[in-house]
Amino acid sequence: MSSLVSMASVSKSLIFFLLSTLSIFPAHPHPLDPLTPAEFTKVQSIVRNSYPESNHNVAFHYVGLEEPAKSAILSWLEGSATKTPPRQAFIIARINQTTHEIVADLPDHKIISDEVYGGYGYPVLTFDEQIAANAMPFSYTPFLESIRKRGLKVDEVVCTSFAIGWYGEQRRNRRVVRVLCNYLDGSVNLYMRPIEGITVTVDLEEMKILGFVDRSTVPVPKAEGTDYRESSQELPLWSQLKGISIHQSDGPTFTIDGHKIRWDNWDFHLSFDARAGPIISLASIFDLQKQKFRRVLYKGFLSEVFVPYMDLNEEWYYRVFFDAGEYGYGLCAVPLEPLRDCPENAVFMDAYVADHNGMPVNMPKIFCIFERYAGDVMWRHTENSIPDKVISEVRPEVTLVVRMVSTVGNYDYINDWEFKQSGSIKVTVGLTGLLEVRGSMYTHRDQIKEEAYGTLLAENTLGANHDHFFTYHLDLDVDGDANSFVRSQLQMTPVADNLSPRKSYWRAMSETAKTESDARIKLGETQGDLLVVNPNKRTNMGNFIGYRLIPGSVAAPLLSDDDYPQIRGAFTKYNLWITPYNKSEKWAGGLFVDQSRGDDTLARWSLRDREIENTDIVLWYTLGFHHVPYQEDFPVMTTLSSGFELRPANFFDRNPVLKVKPPQPDNQSDHSGASQLTNPWIFVLNTIKKHPQCISSFNL
Amino acid sequence: MSSLVSMASVSKSLIFFLLSTLSIFPAHPHPLDPLTPAEFTKVQSIVRNSYPESNHNVAFHYVGLEEPAKSAILSWLEGSATKTPPRQAFIIARINQTTHEIVADLPDHKIISDEVYGGYGYPVLTFDEQIAANAMPFSYTPFLESIRKRGLKVDEVVCTSFAIGWYGEQRRNRRVVRVLCNYLDGSVNLYMRPIEGITVTVDLEEMKILGFVDRSTVPVPKAEGTDYRESSQELPLWSQLKGISIHQSDGPTFTIDGHKIRWDNWDFHLSFDARAGPIISLASIFDLQKQKFRRVLYKGFLSEVFVPYMDLNEEWYYRVFFDAGEYGYGLCAVPLEPLRDCPENAVFMDAYVADHNGMPVNMPKIFCIFERYAGDVMWRHTENSIPDKVISEVRPEVTLVVRMVSTVGNYDYINDWEFKQSGSIKVTVGLTGLLEVRGSMYTHRDQIKEEAYGTLLAENTLGANHDHFFTYHLDLDVDGDANSFVRSQLQMTPVADNLSPRKSYWRAMSETAKTESDARIKLGETQGDLLVVNPNKRTNMGNFIGYRLIPGSVAAPLLSDDDYPQIRGAFTKYNLWITPYNKSEKWAGGLFVDQSRGDDTLARWSLRDREIENTDIVLWYTLGFHHVPYQEDFPVMTTLSSGFELRPANFFDRNPVLKVKPPQPDNQSDHSGASQLTNPWIFVLNTIKKHPQCISSFNL
Repeated sequence: MSSLVSMASVSKSLIFFLLSTLSIFPAHPHPLDPLTPAEFTKVQSIVRNSYPESNHNVAFHYVGLEEPAKSAILSWLEGSATKTPPRQAFIIARINQTTHEIVADLPDHKIISDEVYGGYGYPVLTFDEQIAANAMPFSYTPFLESIRKRGLKVDEVVCTSFAIGWYGEQRRNRRVVRVLCNYLDGSVNLYMRPIEGITVTVDLEEMKILGFVDRSTVPVPKAEGTDYRESSQELPLWSQLKGISIHQSDGPTFTIDGHKIRWDNWDFHLSFDARAGPIISLASIFDLQKQKFRRVLYKGFLSEVFVPYMDLNEEWYYRVFFDAGEYGYGLCAVPLEPLRDCPENAVFMDAYVADHNGMPVNMPKIFCIFERYAGDVMWRHTENSIPDKVISEVRPEVTLVVRMVSTVGNYDYINDWEFKQSGSIKVTVGLTGLLEVRGSMYTHRDQIKEEAYGTLLAENTLGANHDHFFTYHLDLDVDGDANSFVRSQLQMTPVADNLSPRKSYWRAMSETAKTESDARIKLGETQGDLLVVNPNKRTNMGNFIGYRLIPGSVAAPLLSDDDYPQIRGAFTKYNLWITPYNKSEKWAGGLFVDQSRGDDTLARWSLRDREIENTDIVLWYTLGFHHVPYQEDFPVMTTLSSGFELRPANFFDRNPVLKVKPPQPDNQSDHSGASQLTNPWIFVLNTIKKHPQCISSFNL
Repeated sequence: MSSLVSMASVSKSLIFFLLSTLSIFPAHPHPLDPLTPAEFTKVQSIVRNSYPESNHNVAFHYVGLEEPAKSAILSWLEGSATKTPPRQAFIIARINQTTHEIVADLPDHKIISDEVYGGYGYPVLTFDEQIAANAMPFSYTPFLESIRKRGLKVDEVVCTSFAIGWYGEQRRNRRVVRVLCNYLDGSVNLYMRPIEGITVTVDLEEMKILGFVDRSTVPVPKAEGTDYRESSQELPLWSQLKGISIHQSDGPTFTIDGHKIRWDNWDFHLSFDARAGPIISLASIFDLQKQKFRRVLYKGFLSEVFVPYMDLNEEWYYRVFFDAGEYGYGLCAVPLEPLRDCPENAVFMDAYVADHNGMPVNMPKIFCIFERYAGDVMWRHTENSIPDKVISEVRPEVTLVVRMVSTVGNYDYINDWEFKQSGSIKVTVGLTGLLEVRGSMYTHRDQIKEEAYGTLLAENTLGANHDHFFTYHLDLDVDGDANSFVRSQLQMTPVADNLSPRKSYWRAMSETAKTESDARIKLGETQGDLLVVNPNKRTNMGNFIGYRLIPGSVAAPLLSDDDYPQIRGAFTKYNLWITPYNKSEKWAGGLFVDQSRGDDTLARWSLRDREIENTDIVLWYTLGFHHVPYQEDFPVMTTLSSGFELRPANFFDRNPVLKVKPPQPDNQSDHSGASQLTNPWIFVLNTIKKHPQCISSFNL
């Protein structure tokens, strides 16, 4: 019977595919594919069937793939599975003001589990409820009075919702947000024009105002100079650079089949999740020597983004954002602009999310995928030492990039997953967009006598100090799923006087982490390499097969451990954690982050101190930025980037890109390369080597 | 009389210019231009006049521009100079086995100072003497015997010279090198085929063998699998990527006038030095708001590269390289291959060095200069919160890169100076080329029972642990030459219970360094920003005009302070030093590094603890890499890159690239950008905002 249902489902999918022009709905869907619009609709109908509208108030806070068990995926992948992995959805819904975690089977069209969540914390805010909350003040007389009192035009006010966090309250709070407002009136840069002092507290369930405070009046910073639109710039303008573009006249080298991407020696699956954004799964690299694909990454995604601000004012102390868990990093993704966000040779992919009512919403051009050529060199060598020869071998670097931009309110985060032919996976985050600024009385730095919590960027405009911590879930499967974490620490080693003219050298001392506590690492304290190895597999030389993490911008939180934001963001205390694979441990800040109390974070899970040696492990890495604003960040910030690299380290027996040929020039233009190289020294060398007697007359 | 000579010289230059097709000899030479071939010839003739060949043995170890006093350059630049800065050459010559430091005036055609150097250390080795030394073993019977004894073919042996360093010897050593040999015979990758155990010590002055040791025999690693040439690769080969290239159909935006480069808002001078490679001078950025150029960097160059190996074997303990001071980082520059080392839109520039005899040698295509477009985003924002509007403004990032590759024996260093429209100067070093490996008995890791000092990469092939420290001399002149160094340390600050629901935040505590000891910094120990500010100039908001250093790969030496290599390389002990500007303090490892004893290093100069506040200061920054080899580094290494950024920090009153227009597409292809953006939420938002009464029916 289940096979009948399954066939029906397949034919439905097929019909949908034939009707659709989008290549992301392939003939043979992959078990890790995100839900299709039809599947979203089906989920909505399944839930609605159980909770009819007549007597249930249902809001869909998260709808996504209920990921099949890793074992099911792996055996399906190896062709040893007797059946395809189940197709299920995971739903977080608020139903009559309680949080439900629901798993629905799609082919069976039924709910297979439905649990009421009774712990602390609430799900990701929906866009719809934020929009509704943001509109509340406009029909609230005291608010309108406050706006008028300031001499501001109500029509030019824009309000946004802020999660309230948790500050040690014993009593459980309702689902509320603080609504704070900004001003347009001559600028689209509302973030540079805060209306300070007014706080509207809105109950999201009842959608009503619970509280209103107007506690102070400081000037709204002026509009002049804040607009960032090309059309709004005043003279003198910048003279334009000459055109520059990337050409691939034969088209891209990669192919996209649904969500499976195949590029050169890489093969991986790209999914979209409303909370995480891009999810890279089953990334395998073809080993030319072994003539097979070898798995590197079972799954990698951005698990949480922790953004604490350092301003203690009444409207500011709770600005401690968890961009994935509170707002949905994928939900906040924005359409990419061809030729601007991504180069000419990029291919775009749409995504879908469920809205408040569970219905699919198309998000156009959410990913771009392109081959990147920046003029860099993958490897090279020029050899001048060999008589009669000059050798110069150079391989330019071409990589594959998957990009998504998430704009969480004011900030724009550019997220790149970059695959290199050499086996590296490089993840980069670029921070751009608009600062969050506080309105103030100050018009000059010299007026500042007390703690300002930031930098005076423009008149009445304080850029608040803050951090960004990006915590990645990296389920590496280095040539198989049983892995260990090895820390290769470099130690200065003294040498006894009579043993060497040297007095010291350094050694790489490798230690395998046995349990979770061995693998909590604050970067910067010691020097060395961080590796995930497969202790069951060795190279031809007997070295353990491995990958290493090359960290990027290192920053650690500077909040006290007992401070509430830090309790909730405790997963950033270490830059590195290792956990044994556990399907439920996906979200470093917990599944329910809004008003969370830190009882479901990576830091708590890790306290169990589980064994992590020679087992399926997950590497959690936090990339951090401390941001002291500068005037250059006003009115829009230039991108600041950093990232990390997962680089093969005894994964291959030898350099895997040794045999890569230089790419063909895109057109057959002049290539005055290797053959014309000359070496000014070679003649001298040859003369001397062929006529050693010349040496005696050389320098005497 | 001097004006007559000068005129004669000018007309000679003019003739040379007319005869030359190279744009690097402009009609109006710049006082910082490197010596022209005619000037090299003149220098040689000036020195030879004073030291005739009949009774002087003269070797030219360094010939370069004697840089005019900074004050002379600055007043010339401002147009306030009464005369143009003098045109002089600095020569380091060995004359009858003593080291001379000579300054020659070129228009006057005479030596104006000539000092015999009596301290420790010798000048950069010349190529010619290394080539001669490398040839010595081939006419030395015991060596030939040792080669035959190993069953090797003499014709396939290639030898190279190694500086011997200093290991506490009281007695001054002669100018000697150790000559060590490698093997070809079926591969061009001589570095993967060391002939261990044989050491030939060669006196460079007498050009004779002083010592010969053959102490052990280990197998020469096999040739198979070591060749990196495209033509030598065996099947299966890599399938080629489709063509990709960078197009600028209207040509580049930059102009090159001699050595002056003008690109968009940047203006700088690019020189070449045999020791340092590229020297960037007088880098100024045009401030659109102030409508003037403002200086950022008076001079920036790579001062020294310290590469200690960690192998204590007899043939290895002294492998502690100072690539600039011992071998000449510029001297080792190699011709860049169009379309491989640099993209299609690159422009190339030649350089000249003096050979052993002082005569000019042309080094073709030593620099490439190109506009870089990697598909990255300079800044962006998408605004969804404003009713009736979706705003998306995106500016792609196009930068200007100056590249040089220096191949110091086995290693290839790719050096980029990148200029951004936003005011950043980003310096990147890519490490690629060939490892230095030690031959050994081992064919499997499990055989290794004692200290191996590295990783078994292939049969009989141990890749030795080592470091690379790149020390940059950065004479920042942030909007003028009187600058201070400010460390903005971020400090966790507890908050009293009753003051805020928060318990902590961080503050940026700025401290201005008064003397040199305040500014010696080991990165990684604390968190914060590192700034060079102009304490005499402020932004419109009263912030001090500044630039900040964003460090890259952080590594510190792991040798004991009293170890001889570390005494000589003591300038790497801190990642950051500040010194007051002193024309003579150019080379962090000292002017004479071969066999130096550490008495002329940055670390020594800094002991004077001079005042560095509000004066002309130099920032010294060391970018470090610890290199534990992995099998992927065999037989050629994939590039590993890192670098640092000098980024404006309250240098401008606002984001300087706010008014940059998106670059024109290079061809008029489809641009389906901003106008077509849709926002799925906007309709909901507009409905609610226009009809607030809808809210009540929203969710209840």
